[in-house]
Amino acid sequence: MSEQNQQVVLARRPSGPVTPEDFRLIEAKVPELAEGHVLVRNQFLSLDPYMRGRMSDAKSYAAPQALDAVMGGATVGTIVRSKHAGFAAGDEVMCMLGGWQLYSALDARLVHKVDTRRVPLSAYLGAVGMPGVTAWYGLFEVCKPKAGETVVVSAAAGAVGSVVGQLAKQHGCRVIGIAGGAAKCEHVVRDLGFDVCVDYKAGNLRGALAAAAPSGVDCVFENVAGEVLDASLARMNPFGRVALCGAISGYNGESTPLQDVRSLLINRLTVRGFIISDHLEVWPRALADLGERVATGKLKYRETMAEGLASAPQAFIGMLAGKNLGKQLVKLI
Amino acid sequence: MSEQNQQVVLARRPSGPVTPEDFRLIEAKVPELAEGHVLVRNQFLSLDPYMRGRMSDAKSYAAPQALDAVMGGATVGTIVRSKHAGFAAGDEVMCMLGGWQLYSALDARLVHKVDTRRVPLSAYLGAVGMPGVTAWYGLFEVCKPKAGETVVVSAAAGAVGSVVGQLAKQHGCRVIGIAGGAAKCEHVVRDLGFDVCVDYKAGNLRGALAAAAPSGVDCVFENVAGEVLDASLARMNPFGRVALCGAISGYNGESTPLQDVRSLLINRLTVRGFIISDHLEVWPRALADLGERVATGKLKYRETMAEGLASAPQAFIGMLAGKNLGKQLVKLI
Repeated sequence: MSEQNQQVVLARRPSGPVTPEDFRLIEAKVPELAEGHVLVRNQFLSLDPYMRGRMSDAKSYAAPQALDAVMGGATVGTIVRSKHAGFAAGDEVMCMLGGWQLYSALDARLVHKVDTRRVPLSAYLGAVGMPGVTAWYGLFEVCKPKAGETVVVSAAAGAVGSVVGQLAKQHGCRVIGIAGGAAKCEHVVRDLGFDVCVDYKAGNLRGALAAAAPSGVDCVFENVAGEVLDASLARMNPFGRVALCGAISGYNGESTPLQDVRSLLINRLTVRGFIISDHLEVWPRALADLGERVATGKLKYRETMAEGLASAPQAFIGMLAGKNLGKQLVKLI
Repeated sequence: MSEQNQQVVLARRPSGPVTPEDFRLIEAKVPELAEGHVLVRNQFLSLDPYMRGRMSDAKSYAAPQALDAVMGGATVGTIVRSKHAGFAAGDEVMCMLGGWQLYSALDARLVHKVDTRRVPLSAYLGAVGMPGVTAWYGLFEVCKPKAGETVVVSAAAGAVGSVVGQLAKQHGCRVIGIAGGAAKCEHVVRDLGFDVCVDYKAGNLRGALAAAAPSGVDCVFENVAGEVLDASLARMNPFGRVALCGAISGYNGESTPLQDVRSLLINRLTVRGFIISDHLEVWPRALADLGERVATGKLKYRETMAEGLASAPQAFIGMLAGKNLGKQLVKLI
């Protein structure tokens, strides 16, 4: 074993905002490979908002991240050694359970080969990975917009929201993004092709949303919750659908009330929370569709790249504060 | 024309709780019957919570009740005269648009004959009428419980909730009612067969609900919203469904926040607001099922009967305050 591993572990559970002291960078040995396992040299680590939830030990849909254990997270990289007939050194793979580390020794059944001839490796953590499938499922299976309907997407410049908006636009919808700051809003409209983007930091969210949605709102893809969701709900058309994908506004323990339940009744709305890992059956179909759109240039994406594993905690904190544009990654080589 | 009509009209829009002064009882003549119309002598008037919403002029799913016009509401009664070949004097009918009045002259297409050989006339305003269909649709088409699942029903002693619970029980579910006061709770369990009923006025709603639902809650049929809904949401199992049928707690203009949107995400819940008049296609099937259950004694119901049209305003106010048990009616003959 010549490889020297580095890992980021959870040092303590945050109370309120995440701080760098909640993490610890450690050196570790690469373990002896068990039969059926492979060793992956990770090239990119994905940082995602859901990780914030797992750092707490409050009840959630997934078990909490264990203390002093490697932070969970998806990676892409290259097989170094294999004790499984289906993989060979040099194969490029995506590992949902790669973790915040340079090397991952994994059961080969949890490792997926990827084709980088038409889609860049890092995209398998974003537009052609979990965030992309989340967008695809939430839009097409939860919101189910018809062409001509109006779709609102919050966190529109993020890894999920950016895909939602482009898919909805290509589906024939009017697409309104909500994002924080003029730069993100400009990106969302100019680069991603949303019809309009409302800057929630500009201080007139409800008025701007009303102006942006003269025919009302039929679908909401919600990543933020709180006041952002309330503003969308105030513009809903009858029989509107809300795909509740995230609640970033409450990730530090803030409450996330929805102010006007009567609006759900009056407009006969459906609000559905979903977690993409519940719907593994759609992944192959969604990934094929997303991969084709990326390969043919129809689906654009941005990446915000941190350099080196040691930068992962600060990059994660920045992403939770909305400092990223598009997919937040950490480059590990 | 020998008939002298009496009508209750909306005198003013309430600000806050409804008062008797918001209504006015007037004398009126029965109009000359147009071709295709029928004249109905109403025997019972239905009082329903939705009427409170229409007394306001805030945006809602239905046009507001006009000032100085007859209060809208369903009635059952007997045909006095007919200018439509399908109806004859003596026919018993249900009129969705009968109104708060002794006589209704109506387009015959809005009048439905009812069969009182096995189901009492008044039941066509309750368990075999709009409230029953609301219960049937919300339970079977929105909640879609499986046998063995736990269903929570708020306003459990009311016209809708009492039907929901009995249908769910006959469907093989564990059924928990929520109602106000020991008498209602006793009725719900002893007479209607719910497994248990939580008295929200007893001051320990969350604790009592937790004790009543040791396996968590899979479905909620919600008539109240506010704290009652929050308490149910805190006990939900993954993939739970909430049929949002009413929000009585907000009918006087109080806000109805839902405190923890994150719970919808964490448990992948679906919350769907519905209005039964959107789903006319299910009425024949639902009414046939409900009628059969009432006729065979499987579906029980209670009525709270006010005497005479002049008592309608006070009966309505009482119903909004939860003073009724089961269906609130006004006897007009």
